[in-house]
Amino acid sequence: MLVVMRSQATEEQVRDVCRKIESLGLRAHPIPGAQRTAIGITGNDGAVEPGSLEEMPGVGEVIRVSKPYKLVSRDIKPDNTVIKFPNSHVTIGGKDIVVMAGPCSIESREQAMIIGEIVSRAGGHFLRGGAYKPRTSPYSFQGLGEEGLKIMAEVRERFGLLIVTEAVDNESLDLVADYADMIQIGARNMQNFSLLKRAGRARKPVLLKRGMSATLEELLMAAEYVMSEGNYNVVLCERGVRTFADHTRNTLDLSLVPAVQRLSHLPILVDPSHGTGKRNKVLPMGRAAIAVGADGLIVEVHHDPDHALSDGPQSIVPAQFETLMCEIKQIAAVLQRGVVAPVNQAGSLLAAQASSLPAAAR
Amino acid sequence: MLVVMRSQATEEQVRDVCRKIESLGLRAHPIPGAQRTAIGITGNDGAVEPGSLEEMPGVGEVIRVSKPYKLVSRDIKPDNTVIKFPNSHVTIGGKDIVVMAGPCSIESREQAMIIGEIVSRAGGHFLRGGAYKPRTSPYSFQGLGEEGLKIMAEVRERFGLLIVTEAVDNESLDLVADYADMIQIGARNMQNFSLLKRAGRARKPVLLKRGMSATLEELLMAAEYVMSEGNYNVVLCERGVRTFADHTRNTLDLSLVPAVQRLSHLPILVDPSHGTGKRNKVLPMGRAAIAVGADGLIVEVHHDPDHALSDGPQSIVPAQFETLMCEIKQIAAVLQRGVVAPVNQAGSLLAAQASSLPAAAR
Amino acid sequence: MLVVMRSQATEEQVRDVCRKIESLGLRAHPIPGAQRTAIGITGNDGAVEPGSLEEMPGVGEVIRVSKPYKLVSRDIKPDNTVIKFPNSHVTIGGKDIVVMAGPCSIESREQAMIIGEIVSRAGGHFLRGGAYKPRTSPYSFQGLGEEGLKIMAEVRERFGLLIVTEAVDNESLDLVADYADMIQIGARNMQNFSLLKRAGRARKPVLLKRGMSATLEELLMAAEYVMSEGNYNVVLCERGVRTFADHTRNTLDLSLVPAVQRLSHLPILVDPSHGTGKRNKVLPMGRAAIAVGADGLIVEVHHDPDHALSDGPQSIVPAQFETLMCEIKQIAAVLQRGVVAPVNQAGSLLAAQASSLPAAAR
Amino acid sequence: MLVVMRSQATEEQVRDVCRKIESLGLRAHPIPGAQRTAIGITGNDGAVEPGSLEEMPGVGEVIRVSKPYKLVSRDIKPDNTVIKFPNSHVTIGGKDIVVMAGPCSIESREQAMIIGEIVSRAGGHFLRGGAYKPRTSPYSFQGLGEEGLKIMAEVRERFGLLIVTEAVDNESLDLVADYADMIQIGARNMQNFSLLKRAGRARKPVLLKRGMSATLEELLMAAEYVMSEGNYNVVLCERGVRTFADHTRNTLDLSLVPAVQRLSHLPILVDPSHGTGKRNKVLPMGRAAIAVGADGLIVEVHHDPDHALSDGPQSIVPAQFETLMCEIKQIAAVLQRGVVAPVNQAGSLLAAQASSLPAAAR
Repeated sequence: MLVVMRSQATEEQVRDVCRKIESLGLRAHPIPGAQRTAIGITGNDGAVEPGSLEEMPGVGEVIRVSKPYKLVSRDIKPDNTVIKFPNSHVTIGGKDIVVMAGPCSIESREQAMIIGEIVSRAGGHFLRGGAYKPRTSPYSFQGLGEEGLKIMAEVRERFGLLIVTEAVDNESLDLVADYADMIQIGARNMQNFSLLKRAGRARKPVLLKRGMSATLEELLMAAEYVMSEGNYNVVLCERGVRTFADHTRNTLDLSLVPAVQRLSHLPILVDPSHGTGKRNKVLPMGRAAIAVGADGLIVEVHHDPDHALSDGPQSIVPAQFETLMCEIKQIAAVLQRGVVAPVNQAGSLLAAQASSLPAAAR
Repeated sequence: MLVVMRSQATEEQVRDVCRKIESLGLRAHPIPGAQRTAIGITGNDGAVEPGSLEEMPGVGEVIRVSKPYKLVSRDIKPDNTVIKFPNSHVTIGGKDIVVMAGPCSIESREQAMIIGEIVSRAGGHFLRGGAYKPRTSPYSFQGLGEEGLKIMAEVRERFGLLIVTEAVDNESLDLVADYADMIQIGARNMQNFSLLKRAGRARKPVLLKRGMSATLEELLMAAEYVMSEGNYNVVLCERGVRTFADHTRNTLDLSLVPAVQRLSHLPILVDPSHGTGKRNKVLPMGRAAIAVGADGLIVEVHHDPDHALSDGPQSIVPAQFETLMCEIKQIAAVLQRGVVAPVNQAGSLLAAQASSLPAAAR
Repeated sequence: MLVVMRSQATEEQVRDVCRKIESLGLRAHPIPGAQRTAIGITGNDGAVEPGSLEEMPGVGEVIRVSKPYKLVSRDIKPDNTVIKFPNSHVTIGGKDIVVMAGPCSIESREQAMIIGEIVSRAGGHFLRGGAYKPRTSPYSFQGLGEEGLKIMAEVRERFGLLIVTEAVDNESLDLVADYADMIQIGARNMQNFSLLKRAGRARKPVLLKRGMSATLEELLMAAEYVMSEGNYNVVLCERGVRTFADHTRNTLDLSLVPAVQRLSHLPILVDPSHGTGKRNKVLPMGRAAIAVGADGLIVEVHHDPDHALSDGPQSIVPAQFETLMCEIKQIAAVLQRGVVAPVNQAGSLLAAQASSLPAAAR
Repeated sequence: MLVVMRSQATEEQVRDVCRKIESLGLRAHPIPGAQRTAIGITGNDGAVEPGSLEEMPGVGEVIRVSKPYKLVSRDIKPDNTVIKFPNSHVTIGGKDIVVMAGPCSIESREQAMIIGEIVSRAGGHFLRGGAYKPRTSPYSFQGLGEEGLKIMAEVRERFGLLIVTEAVDNESLDLVADYADMIQIGARNMQNFSLLKRAGRARKPVLLKRGMSATLEELLMAAEYVMSEGNYNVVLCERGVRTFADHTRNTLDLSLVPAVQRLSHLPILVDPSHGTGKRNKVLPMGRAAIAVGADGLIVEVHHDPDHALSDGPQSIVPAQFETLMCEIKQIAAVLQRGVVAPVNQAGSLLAAQASSLPAAAR
């Protein structure tokens, strides 16, 4: 912490503040400047924050300096974290870009299969999709629950995709950890510390989405909660923040990507679907996310968005997803990054199944 | 919903959009204007939102019109909700102002007793204080848990105060519902829908704080979650939102008070402590909150803020709390409202105990 | 400035940063802490800001500490500035509250006279009203220009009100300075530095409105521009800032009032009309503004808001203005402040003219 | 406009609102829905906005629907505007990307020549640089004025670059229009309507930067001001908006690019220097800007940012600028766009002068 004295503060007032600091068991370091004196404070282990310095005579401002994060920091671990998945060559945080795609909600076995095939054929690595949906309205579709998880596991079996889905409380988190390859913590739960701790005790990697008005520091501290419980496989995700701007549902803050990379060793993805809320902005912002240096994308894809039970207006259609995959491969190459094929035998596997798809989904 | 066509949209395009709307089982109402045509949509029960209208040729914009809240709305219940507490004459939402005060965290039995006495003597009605603390850092003090709840119950016993404290997950919610008179849902959990539903099944009133970037509609929908489970005793609370402004920790949005009162029958309080994060702004903003028409305040009071385990810089000291009580009584009178004495026999009870207080706390 | 080193920075890196600082003609003050070293910088007169410190090895962050304002600061002038007006007993910034009221735009001589009488009768001190209107659309009514200024001067003559109106460029500023008692600089021009300098050379007090996304520091620096040219009679005005919140047109940030009062000696008013954009929120927020400690209000009043050429939806009607005057007098009294009668002989003057008013305006 | 009635509104109240609308010379179109009735309003030419509908019994909300922009709209002109410059093959808004680069401020002839050569050699098209600087503090360097314009003209002469620089008031605008190829209107003046009108009467293209909290609609309306005076050569520029996020100076809102392209035919550039305020984020965000589809970049480049008189911390150094040029060419190719060489004979011209550069600048 740094106490900035007013310019007309007397020497006696500076001494009083120093005495107060020392009386709290901390050390004071006065720095006299041309206009005013600043007083550095050291010895603060973070547990107690002096509550009345700002009110002392002669004090202008108290500035907090120390950052409270540890395990997430490059100070502790300079090398990038690269997350691996059992029985898969897909990684997150390494040289290759990862793509997670799928519907907002898992609506039925048929829908999941159709979209799973679309994602797999176009080269996506993960099927995303909600089984537990945090909806603004209690009267909206709340997800299929465990039934949805079972459907996702079937899609994994059939198309060789990895599975990521959101947990919304301790109960669903345990189930998600059983079925999925990756546990998503949604934006609305980014500071649900009880849930973060539970995720920290799970044995699966965690995809942690930035809260709607979370600062970089708060996002990193949320990851710190997970890591402090022993789960070091955390992937961050920018998904748009809330601002005054009304041409998109949220304002996708791509500068978070280099900012995270400077401070932390954790991978970071971008979600251009929630980040914009508009289908016609998903491709441009998806390209931009790769260009800025993100480790991958998570996007909503739906073969019939008019009848989607949630988020239809922001889901891209299959042909757009193929275009997106094609464009981001080229942009990744400019940054010396690649996009691995999702499964080794994908070609033959999928060719065999193509004819079983309803025409509307092709 | 309303579809606004571009000004150069052809009649054929307008007809196409109408046909599309009808094909989704909805009704289209074209409104030709001087510059462009708008098309109203009715028959939408909220379950499905057409996902591709915005992408159709000739469409400029799609505007959502219907508000999804029901139980919280004055449309359903025109009269103000007034919440009563068993064995107490304190109410929330009626003619009288309610004041909840206490430390950020319950730190010890001694601390809680000292502050409980301060609150009670100055005329406060509720002891607030955290037993389960949602802290940004996993390394910060996380609260005393059930031990803290027991201490609060003791304070109630001794000083006749009601008790409000925060629940952070399903487990703590059940305990809070057992010990406290009112269950607080914090800003970070305003959209923790799993927790909201559990609170909706509890038998105690709920104090629901606005999320850091929640719109009025989202706040009302969070209350709707609680009410949709059968608990109609919900009190809203403005506690500051996140903006670019850096002279306060949050920007206290007092205009929410008349905005809520226009749309909803639920009571609304204001928290000037979290709303500003600065001790020297708590009194001015507390006065303003009563002047704008809030049903009461929730404020942080600490007898020794330099050694508080959390939120020291924003806690007011006992003398300031007395001044605040005095000022808001006068302002409430301008709005024809009052502030009831906390307990009937308070005078004699407290007089007897005054001498047992440490000098620093008086 | 303060350079915060990373926790794993080497001693050599700390020395390099210190050497760099000294090479720029500044002084470095290393403060070794438990986790990391911070380096205070002094000797910076503000002209040059080292541009590459943040990029040096081992540097975590660079924090700016010194505040650049001088003349606006309580450090320079501890006592409140109280602004007086020739031939008037109205002051701004002293014990008494000031009220400025009137239409958004001066639309005609008749309209101005009707509203002038309403304001005067209810006890307002200034007629506000736009002759030069900064409108979002070039096709909206842009104001009557000098003709509007002449009409305002007539209203002053007849009802003894002072006159405040906005200048939008150098040309209009000179005219406003000729006709009005106070020159308004609008929110959109708060950082039109060319206009601020011109206002600094005018001989009339300046009412400076906060920009739509201005920080406290930027507002004070805008006032500093005016004062640095020799005009010390500056009054600040909070009029709402832009946030994500959509229940009001802007978010009225009342905490600015105590924040300004802590740092500056300048008076500060509040505009609840632009601050909310909704007629039904003007009275509650107007009361709150006085309760928080503002030196006065500026509000839009119109006798026929349905036909107002601008801002009809946020203008209050005459009866509401009378209620507001009555309520703020009572709240001011709680803060030991008063509201002086606008003119000495007001009673007899106005009594004589009351019968000439159209019925609709009474 | 659309009036949304409350769900419990009576038929009589609906009729009253319709009657009121008709009495104002407008037409009412009631749309009865399952839950509530909405009433469309047509016939509104924009001059008068009914000021009291929201206060009528039974009214829930009034929603503005019509967009007020005309000349900027794709409704009027479906094809992209492509801006040409006399005696140059550089265009803005066509197939090719444009790059504007240079110092924040023109500080001296020597500095401008060094940086001009750097920009030209790396393939930039415009020299940017401030002669009139809108600085937050009146005590900061305010620019060289006309002397700076003369220096820029010399740089154009020598290196074949086009020149863009900011005008801050009517006086400087006339001078800028004389010397430069393009007139910049800065973010702080985006709603300085007096300046916009003057720019609309100038004979040079205008680069209009988005205000710090401007909505898309406000930005388009500012362009409409310029165009309504007859100057149709307007280029928009995203330069970051103000949000709560503190890891960058502003939040660069890249989604504005596709949003503008959907509504308007005007070109749009991105400024990643002001948009982030941090040197280490300029390249990533510059790449992302091209990937999202912007028509070009404007960036700050300085050969000696430690001694820059303004914006040193966000200026990139020459080697970074070369890397940026190289990367954006590759990304532009993914979008089937190119980057033309700045001048035809550039190679030979520059080769001859390379040896005259001080070593530090190479």
